[in-house]
Amino acid sequence: MLAAARESFAGNGFAATSMRGVARAAGVDAALVHHYFDSKDELFVEAMALPIDPRQVAATVLDGPRDELGVRIVTVFLTVWESPDGQQRMKAFLRSVVSSDQVAQLMRDGISRLILVPVSEAIGGEDARLRVSLVASQLIGMALTRYLLELEPIASAPMPTLVERIAPVLQQYLTD
Amino acid sequence: MLAAARESFAGNGFAATSMRGVARAAGVDAALVHHYFDSKDELFVEAMALPIDPRQVAATVLDGPRDELGVRIVTVFLTVWESPDGQQRMKAFLRSVVSSDQVAQLMRDGISRLILVPVSEAIGGEDARLRVSLVASQLIGMALTRYLLELEPIASAPMPTLVERIAPVLQQYLTD
Repeated sequence: MLAAARESFAGNGFAATSMRGVARAAGVDAALVHHYFDSKDELFVEAMALPIDPRQVAATVLDGPRDELGVRIVTVFLTVWESPDGQQRMKAFLRSVVSSDQVAQLMRDGISRLILVPVSEAIGGEDARLRVSLVASQLIGMALTRYLLELEPIASAPMPTLVERIAPVLQQYLTD
Repeated sequence: MLAAARESFAGNGFAATSMRGVARAAGVDAALVHHYFDSKDELFVEAMALPIDPRQVAATVLDGPRDELGVRIVTVFLTVWESPDGQQRMKAFLRSVVSSDQVAQLMRDGISRLILVPVSEAIGGEDARLRVSLVASQLIGMALTRYLLELEPIASAPMPTLVERIAPVLQQYLTD
């Protein structure tokens, strides 16, 4: 199912992909796809190996005081990416973004729709999307530097050190 | 010469590559290599398409008031990457980092030796290398988000907007 979904999302785009079509391509009943995936969004997240579950991000942003946004965000992303599975997904995400324009476009649309738009609405303010995309740029850059480029000392810095340094920067992007 | 140098750097590493060896592999006289490239460092920068000339970075960091470091750094990187040639080099750099562990290691060593170490020495302080590597992570993330992922609104933000937002963050990493 995931392979069929990946092929359809990459070949036809998000809008033209349906859960029914994926079931057909995978040779299974549509009910089975619905059994494993609540929605097309969820199928997309799993099939495209988005580097984090958007629902986790939204919950993190919404749940807690506004002046601790930076700490909460960098903590949730680092916690996911420090796990072996999360790190594999992050690496796969970065590899597919840089290797194919088509996949980059799909990832861009997915991240926008599932993460940037809802988080920007939660943050509020006229330039919220710019602020949130700057936060995304720092998180992606940290992941690339730590997990793929493995540049020292960022590659082997303990997680609390990174949280301490990066949280104020994310906070500044979001609320200054 | 560049192809021979790339092959030697990637296959044998930096230390085991010599200008004489590259000349031999390229079938030219060593004097010709020395004519085009002042040093092995310069040959490395050109052959590996480092995303910026390290001498430009060092000059930027050293030349001007300490409390304007963030503005100077983000301005010099964006100016290089906004040019078509600079942007191609940045994209090639990101593609090679994520596609091969061997190339990633070579890039990591090159960036450490040619950029991180001298810039950290210019900044000073016991955790200067961590600070400078955090700056690198934000610059790399901005490049990936703007030029490869093309995530909006960061992808089409005017350069002065990005300088205004990112400069204080780099300043905070370096001197707070």
